[in-house]
Amino acid sequence: DRPLFLIAGPCVIESEGLVLETAGALREIADELGLGLVFKASFDKANRSSLSSYRGPGLEAGLQALERVRREHGLPVLTDVHEDTPLAEVAAVVDVLQTPAFLCRQSDFIQAVARQGLPVNLKKGQFLAPWDMANVVDKARAAGNERLLVCERGVSFGYNNLVSDMRALAVMRATGCPVVFDATHSVQLPGGQGGASGGQREFVPVLARAAVAAGVAGLFMETHPDPERALSDGPNAWPLERMRELLASVVELDRAVKARGLVEQQESD
Amino acid sequence: DRPLFLIAGPCVIESEGLVLETAGALREIADELGLGLVFKASFDKANRSSLSSYRGPGLEAGLQALERVRREHGLPVLTDVHEDTPLAEVAAVVDVLQTPAFLCRQSDFIQAVARQGLPVNLKKGQFLAPWDMANVVDKARAAGNERLLVCERGVSFGYNNLVSDMRALAVMRATGCPVVFDATHSVQLPGGQGGASGGQREFVPVLARAAVAAGVAGLFMETHPDPERALSDGPNAWPLERMRELLASVVELDRAVKARGLVEQQESD
Amino acid sequence: DRPLFLIAGPCVIESEGLVLETAGALREIADELGLGLVFKASFDKANRSSLSSYRGPGLEAGLQALERVRREHGLPVLTDVHEDTPLAEVAAVVDVLQTPAFLCRQSDFIQAVARQGLPVNLKKGQFLAPWDMANVVDKARAAGNERLLVCERGVSFGYNNLVSDMRALAVMRATGCPVVFDATHSVQLPGGQGGASGGQREFVPVLARAAVAAGVAGLFMETHPDPERALSDGPNAWPLERMRELLASVVELDRAVKARGLVEQQESD
Amino acid sequence: DRPLFLIAGPCVIESEGLVLETAGALREIADELGLGLVFKASFDKANRSSLSSYRGPGLEAGLQALERVRREHGLPVLTDVHEDTPLAEVAAVVDVLQTPAFLCRQSDFIQAVARQGLPVNLKKGQFLAPWDMANVVDKARAAGNERLLVCERGVSFGYNNLVSDMRALAVMRATGCPVVFDATHSVQLPGGQGGASGGQREFVPVLARAAVAAGVAGLFMETHPDPERALSDGPNAWPLERMRELLASVVELDRAVKARGLVEQQESD
Repeated sequence: DRPLFLIAGPCVIESEGLVLETAGALREIADELGLGLVFKASFDKANRSSLSSYRGPGLEAGLQALERVRREHGLPVLTDVHEDTPLAEVAAVVDVLQTPAFLCRQSDFIQAVARQGLPVNLKKGQFLAPWDMANVVDKARAAGNERLLVCERGVSFGYNNLVSDMRALAVMRATGCPVVFDATHSVQLPGGQGGASGGQREFVPVLARAAVAAGVAGLFMETHPDPERALSDGPNAWPLERMRELLASVVELDRAVKARGLVEQQESD
Repeated sequence: DRPLFLIAGPCVIESEGLVLETAGALREIADELGLGLVFKASFDKANRSSLSSYRGPGLEAGLQALERVRREHGLPVLTDVHEDTPLAEVAAVVDVLQTPAFLCRQSDFIQAVARQGLPVNLKKGQFLAPWDMANVVDKARAAGNERLLVCERGVSFGYNNLVSDMRALAVMRATGCPVVFDATHSVQLPGGQGGASGGQREFVPVLARAAVAAGVAGLFMETHPDPERALSDGPNAWPLERMRELLASVVELDRAVKARGLVEQQESD
Repeated sequence: DRPLFLIAGPCVIESEGLVLETAGALREIADELGLGLVFKASFDKANRSSLSSYRGPGLEAGLQALERVRREHGLPVLTDVHEDTPLAEVAAVVDVLQTPAFLCRQSDFIQAVARQGLPVNLKKGQFLAPWDMANVVDKARAAGNERLLVCERGVSFGYNNLVSDMRALAVMRATGCPVVFDATHSVQLPGGQGGASGGQREFVPVLARAAVAAGVAGLFMETHPDPERALSDGPNAWPLERMRELLASVVELDRAVKARGLVEQQESD
Repeated sequence: DRPLFLIAGPCVIESEGLVLETAGALREIADELGLGLVFKASFDKANRSSLSSYRGPGLEAGLQALERVRREHGLPVLTDVHEDTPLAEVAAVVDVLQTPAFLCRQSDFIQAVARQGLPVNLKKGQFLAPWDMANVVDKARAAGNERLLVCERGVSFGYNNLVSDMRALAVMRATGCPVVFDATHSVQLPGGQGGASGGQREFVPVLARAAVAAGVAGLFMETHPDPERALSDGPNAWPLERMRELLASVVELDRAVKARGLVEQQESD
C-alpha cells in the first residue's frame, strides 16, 4: 500500500551523456510527482536477437556511468547482471540488481545474485506461469536475501508476441514480494523484425495504467530521448519527452487505487 | 469520454424473483454512484458445455421477466440472442441486443440482429484478433445499424483458459464503437470442470480495474446473490452483495482516467 | 485400424464444372491408391471474414452440383450445414453432414444435425480443448446418432495463427469416434489478410504426414485446380495437380502405422 | 535424407550403474534396428523448478560415467552444458555438446560452446519462433562451427503446457542444420506439479511418430528403466523396456518418408 515507485532509464548505456541526460530529466519529473525513482540502464545486452546488434559499453565504462548518475543526481541505480558478470564488482556500485527473464530458472545464478546482499528485481520468464515465480523466490530466499521484487514482462502468446496477463500481477502478490510491471518489455514483439525485436510503443500507456489499477507496487519503463535512434529496444521505449504526462496519469491512478484498497483483498461481511 | 456505464445482471433468468431482486439491488447502487446501468439476463443458454446443464426459462417467460425489470425498475434491459431466436419478438421487449462470442463470424446472424434497429453489443470471439472485430462491425453497419458496441471477453490462451489482453481494448477503439469489457466471462475457465466451465471469481476486480484504467466505455459483469448456487456461470459471477464496493472503485478510477484523457491519444508537442 | 479415408474437394462450389472436374480427378487418384473418398464442397460459406467475399451458389444450385458428383462419379458427398440450413433438404441429397468449428458449442444445432440420421463430421472449435469434444459428442449421441466423426482443424495460438496439436488426435480417440485431421484449415491464418484469412499451403504435407503418423482414421483436405484463383480459402488449399503425390505418401505412411499398431495403445509386458 | 538418428539416455546421471545399463540396452536396440545412436545424460541440472530437486553427480563424476559409456559401449556421448561449465573439460570427454533451451538467446554462451569445435545440439527456447533459430545458428556459425543441430522441444502454450508445432520442424530446415525433435521434453508440463514439472509420457509415441513423418533428421528421447523413480523428468521419460517397440515403429516410418522424399520440397511440374 506504499505509493508506486518507478524503475526507469534507457535500455542500454549508449554514452555517459545519454545516461546523465535521461537520469536528470527523470529525476525532475519524479521529484515533481513525489514518485520514488530507481534509475535503470544496462552495461551489456547479453541476449540480443542478433550478433550484429549493439551490446553496450561493457562493465567498466558502464559502472562508471551509473556511478555518475548516483553521484550527480542522487538516484539509486539498478542494472541487470548475467551469468558471467563479476557480481561483487557490480554490487559495489549499484543499489539494486536485476536478473533477466530468460535466466529465471538458472538456480545457481539466481542464488549468486541474491547472495550479493542487495535488493534484487527478479524478472519472470516469458515461459513461466505466475505461480511458478514462487520457486524462483524460494531459491533467492534460500540464499539469504529477503529484499526481492518480482517483475512481470509479458508471457509468450503465439509467435513473436507477448500478452500481459493482469491476473499474474495478483497471483504474484502471494510471494510476499512487491510486484513490478515492466510496461515497455511487455509490448516487445520478440524477434518480430527478423534480426531484432519489434515493439508496440503505442500500448505502453494502456498497459501501464492497467497494471497500476491492478495494484502493483512498482512500474518499470525504458525511455529514450530519441527512441527511433535508440541502440536497443527503441521500438518499445517510451519517449523521454512524453514521460511526464504518462507518469502523472499513473501516479494519480495509483493514489486512487491504494486509498481505497483492493476489493479482492477485503473480507466480505 | 462519457462516464463509464455498466451492463450487469445474473447470467441466466433463473426466476422472476431472482431477476427482480438483482435488478433492484443493482439499480440502487448505480443510482448512488451515478452509473448508467443496463440490466442483462439470458432467457436461453444455447451453448452450455454439457447437455444436462440448465438453459433457462425459454423465450416467453424470459421476456416477461425482463419486461417486469423494465417496468418495475425503470431499467433498460439487454439480452443475448441466437441463430434460432425470433428476433423481432425479443426486440419488441428489450433495449439492447447482444450477439454471442462464438457466433461473431456468422454473417447472416450478425446482420439479422443489426437489422432489428436496436443497439447491439457485439461480443468478440475467443478466437478472434481484436483488429478483426472491424470485419464484424462492418457487417453490422452494412445492415444499417450504427449503434454498435464491441465487447472483449478474453481470448484463448492454451487449453481451458482465457487471457484478457488490455491492448485489445485500445485496438478496438479504431472501430469507432464504444468498447466494453466483460469482466466476468474473461475469468471463465472454459470447459475447466469437464462438463462445465470453471471460473476465477477472485480476479474479477483486478481485470475490471485494469480495463477501466485502460479506458473502456463500459463494463459488463454477471452477478448473483448466491454465486455458489447459480445455475450458470456461478464460478465466475461476482457476488451481488460485493458489487457496491467493486463498482465504487471502478467508477472512481474511470473519473480519474477520463478527466485526464488518454496519453496515447494525445499529440506529442 | 481401418485404412485411412479421405474427405476432399474445393472449399466452395464455385461452379458445377469445377466441382465435377475436381471430383473426377480425386476419384481417379483414390481408386488408384485404394483410398476411400468422400467428396466435400460447401454451398454457402456462412462465416466469411468479410461481407464482400464470395459465399457460394446457395442451397439449390449447390445441392444440384453435389448430386451430379454422386451420380456421375459414384462418390459419397459431404457438405457443411449452418443454423439456418433446411437440414432435411440437405440430408436428402448428401451422405455426410458436417458441423462448423465455430458452432461446436451450439447445443440445439448439433442435435438437430445429428437427428438427420446421417453420419456427422463434428469439427472441433479453434477455442476448444480436445477433451471437451466429449461434450459435443455426448450432445450428438443424445440425439440418437452413433455415426459421428470428430475433426481437428487447429487451435488458437496467439492472434491470426493456429497450431495443430498432435496430442489432440490421440486425446479425441477417447470419444470412440473416428478422428479426422483437417490438414488445410489447420494451416489457415485466420483473419491474416485483414478482410480475409491467409494460409500456409506449404505446410499441408508436413501436417498431413504428421497426423497420419499420429494415427488418424481420416484426412480432410481442400483442393482446387487453381488455388491462386479460388474464391474461398485459396491460400490454404492444396493444388489438385499435386494431390496424387501427397496422397500416395500419406497412404503409404498410414499402412505402415496401422500394420504395426500404435505403441501407446499396447500393453507393456 | 540420411536415416534417422537417435539421441537418448536418462535425463540425469543418477549413478554409473544406471547410465551403463541404459546405454547397453539402447545400444542393443540401435544395433538391431540399424539406428545411429548418441548417448545422452546430464551431470548437472542447473535449472530445476525447485531448489530441493536432485541436480546430478557434478562434473567430475558425471564425465567419468560418460567416459565409461564411450569406452564400454563404444557410443558417442552428448551432454548439456551451462554458463558456468568448464567447457574445455567437458569437450575433452564428450562427442556432442548441447545448449539448453532457456539459454538459446545468450550470445556469449552460444559462441563459447560453438568454439569448442564439437558438434552442438542447439535447443530452441520455449519462447522462440522457429524462424528465430536462424539468429541462434548465425551466432554459433560466427564462432566458426558448422556442425550444428537445431532441436525443437515444444513452445509455450498457455500456462504449464507446451505444444509441438510440426510446422516448426519444416521451418527450421531453412537453417541448413539437421533438425532434431525432442519427443520427451515436448510432453513436459512445465511447473505443472508446483515444485516440479509434470509430464505426459503417454503422448511420446504420438509426437515421435508425427515428427518423424514430418521429416526430421534425428529424434531425442529421455528414457529410464523405472521412470516412476527417476530423479528428474520421470513423468515425461519413456520406459526403457518399451523403447524397442517405439523405435522400431519410428525407424520404419522414417524409411518410408525418406524413400519417397518430402512432397513440399519437390517441384511441381
